[in-house]
Amino acid sequence: MKNLTDNITDERFFHYFREICNIPHVSFHTDKIRDYIEHFAADHNLKYAKDDYGNIVIYKDGSAGYEDHDAIVLQGHLDMVGASKEEFNFINKPVTIDEELLGQGIVKAKGTTLGADDGIAVAYILAILEDDSLCHPPIEALLTTNEEVGLLGADGFDCSLLSGTTVINIDSEDEGVFLMGSAGGVRCDITIPMQWISKSGDNVTIRVTGLTGGHSGDKIGTGRPSANSLMGRVLNEILQECTGSIVYIKGGSVDNAIANECEAELITDEYDKIAKLCNSVEKDLRQEYFGIDENISVFVGLNGKADKKVLDTDSQKRAITALCLAPQGVIARSGDDNKMVNTSLNLGIVKLTDDLKMGYSVRSVYESAKNGLTEKLRLLALMLGGTAVCSGNYPAWQYEPESRVRELAGNVYRKLTGKEPVFKTIHAGLECGLFYNRMNKPDIVSYGPDIYDIHTFEERMDIASAKRVYELTVELLRNM
Amino acid sequence: MKNLTDNITDERFFHYFREICNIPHVSFHTDKIRDYIEHFAADHNLKYAKDDYGNIVIYKDGSAGYEDHDAIVLQGHLDMVGASKEEFNFINKPVTIDEELLGQGIVKAKGTTLGADDGIAVAYILAILEDDSLCHPPIEALLTTNEEVGLLGADGFDCSLLSGTTVINIDSEDEGVFLMGSAGGVRCDITIPMQWISKSGDNVTIRVTGLTGGHSGDKIGTGRPSANSLMGRVLNEILQECTGSIVYIKGGSVDNAIANECEAELITDEYDKIAKLCNSVEKDLRQEYFGIDENISVFVGLNGKADKKVLDTDSQKRAITALCLAPQGVIARSGDDNKMVNTSLNLGIVKLTDDLKMGYSVRSVYESAKNGLTEKLRLLALMLGGTAVCSGNYPAWQYEPESRVRELAGNVYRKLTGKEPVFKTIHAGLECGLFYNRMNKPDIVSYGPDIYDIHTFEERMDIASAKRVYELTVELLRNM
Repeated sequence: MKNLTDNITDERFFHYFREICNIPHVSFHTDKIRDYIEHFAADHNLKYAKDDYGNIVIYKDGSAGYEDHDAIVLQGHLDMVGASKEEFNFINKPVTIDEELLGQGIVKAKGTTLGADDGIAVAYILAILEDDSLCHPPIEALLTTNEEVGLLGADGFDCSLLSGTTVINIDSEDEGVFLMGSAGGVRCDITIPMQWISKSGDNVTIRVTGLTGGHSGDKIGTGRPSANSLMGRVLNEILQECTGSIVYIKGGSVDNAIANECEAELITDEYDKIAKLCNSVEKDLRQEYFGIDENISVFVGLNGKADKKVLDTDSQKRAITALCLAPQGVIARSGDDNKMVNTSLNLGIVKLTDDLKMGYSVRSVYESAKNGLTEKLRLLALMLGGTAVCSGNYPAWQYEPESRVRELAGNVYRKLTGKEPVFKTIHAGLECGLFYNRMNKPDIVSYGPDIYDIHTFEERMDIASAKRVYELTVELLRNM
Repeated sequence: MKNLTDNITDERFFHYFREICNIPHVSFHTDKIRDYIEHFAADHNLKYAKDDYGNIVIYKDGSAGYEDHDAIVLQGHLDMVGASKEEFNFINKPVTIDEELLGQGIVKAKGTTLGADDGIAVAYILAILEDDSLCHPPIEALLTTNEEVGLLGADGFDCSLLSGTTVINIDSEDEGVFLMGSAGGVRCDITIPMQWISKSGDNVTIRVTGLTGGHSGDKIGTGRPSANSLMGRVLNEILQECTGSIVYIKGGSVDNAIANECEAELITDEYDKIAKLCNSVEKDLRQEYFGIDENISVFVGLNGKADKKVLDTDSQKRAITALCLAPQGVIARSGDDNKMVNTSLNLGIVKLTDDLKMGYSVRSVYESAKNGLTEKLRLLALMLGGTAVCSGNYPAWQYEPESRVRELAGNVYRKLTGKEPVFKTIHAGLECGLFYNRMNKPDIVSYGPDIYDIHTFEERMDIASAKRVYELTVELLRNM
């Protein structure tokens, strides 16, 4: 019996996808794949340009009758996330496609990320560039580097290498969904100096755990609480009722994940009272977050007597105030349906050991709202004797009511599949935001085939979906 | 031709509604209507009890076969809001029903509130109490006072006058909607002392206007901004870029309305720069609140040279910080559909003349979340050298997944009208919250006929709807 997916795996884009899988191309290590692409361009007599950031643009003239059309920028990124079940050398070793799963219509690597994010875009682009039978405007195929580690390639890219004013970004993972905007973001780090004294007494650990957490862009709209914010509330309730001094607080590890755990230590002589209070706060929190985050736990453990460096009275007040007043979560939603998140911030990291450090991820579709929020953080820090420093700013791809390429993509998709396209904006950063701002507001659409569990070793792509989205891209180009 | 609504206006409940309209009964002046009800009870040989707050309970035994059923509390409030087109003495003068509109199926008063909120409940109750042909459990008809001015009657009511564990509250204004919970609330007033100095220069007025505003319970979920919060942002942007000193800030007039206007005065020598900045902030805000509040205006006016008392440097920093860090809007939504607001707060009043005063309305379906928010406000005030005082606390009527009376009411409504009942909770205070907490969590439902534009002189009731809801109530009692 012929394999169900043979007709698809015989496709040229799938040939290139296999080739790409055979070349290690984890972020910061994309030289080999760029070499491969340079050879491809040379072999096909296509002009190309590289820049200092490792980005590469390949140019192909418009097909007969399309020579004078405006150029279309076809875009994806070269690098992939390296995540594996067991230790794996992504720098030197290629991933291995699981051939058994192929027969079931699934492309998956054995024990590692597959790199369909965003290798499938590179594969599509190479297949389109080599196929002289297609109808299309002039193509400027832009393959960027280091997207997965902060949009570094796109951020450094010299946009004068492009003449097109339409961008097709193939870096989404949900077939039928056409993105029409993405949030901008910035990291904001607050540092508040603290004073320490020595104190002995019972050493007690408080732990806020059991939270779901999640990506601070994708999941902030769910209303899931941050363990860091809850710890502020727990400590405030404790220290209103009991005497105690803070030894440390530690919660979360990255600014762009909702903290799902936060731990603190106290020196106190009122362990029993604290244990009762935490029990009662836990009940309150579980009720308040019913249906959102129901397994919140406020753990209290007695570690025995100890002599520790603790916060002095004034520092402790400032620390509690900082955590309790630290804004968290959704700040504004869109007006139409109130469902899309427009502006949010996430207190991803709290670390009170020497100073109090608070690491925020701030996002908005509006540059001005983002600045308004970082101003709040600056004022909070200032008031408590500290400072706030912003870094890693990236701009929003702002939603435009009119978009020719988006409308066409939707129409082509409807025709090809008989299904209704879904249009939405996302509350996370895309390279499109940088192109939107650096290229003078080009017309952009972003889409891609069904890829599941990206950035994990379970990453897998639906082959039939990959085929449909390839056809969509070919047909979209014919219509441009 | 017989009047279309004759058959309804001939109903006994409508007879009583007319009687009630003929007795002035604005809040704080309900003696006359209570006298009327006492006479009614005496005339019908019904026992009744009054308390010191002016509440009255009338008791009627269960009908034949229902004697041993649990008593049902039928409840409404005696007082009405007095709002009029032209000056009107609500204390001594009864409202006048517009007889012409009656023929069109509408009950409306001429130029004043009608008092269908909540006179229709009183009318229903009297009609039910006098009708010996109805089937019903023992009835405890509770008519409270001064609901419209802070739930004062219900707050003072001695619940030991009741034995029933089921409450039917007839004080909603949307036929077919059955309320199953309401938020608790508290007012929180922050006062931050300020220091003043004298300064001369150009006197400039800044005004944030054009906002929609609205009730801070009902409308907070729309995401409409508060003029008070926006003024904080505007002043911060100005005073980051320009030199200037604040003369005063005044915004909003009640804690429970989203402030739709806020005004400030500065002494400055940089009027032109400020005017440009305000123009740019106005553009930002209109974009950010697109689809929500699109006519935001940031007005700047030059009043000429002046010598004024202005904030000193430290006070100005604290004032700006207070306004910018003052939390505003939705804090948490429900988990199921993310649509219901669970917890919110509204900075309704800002007045910076002598001290900085900030008046908040805080609401939540959860007592603990409400306390968590007032703690934030206390910490904010404390940090800025001020204080926060809470008052007028009222509890939530917490949603219960199981409710016999709610389910029955829905079933009866479906049977009577063929329409699907709608069940929801509201983010505003009801007397039900007090009953829920004082009567040991009775089973409660709240509903009522279609009444439009309550609390305004346009208040009007749909007669056919009033008839249907009367029948619903009679039938519901028969089923209890």
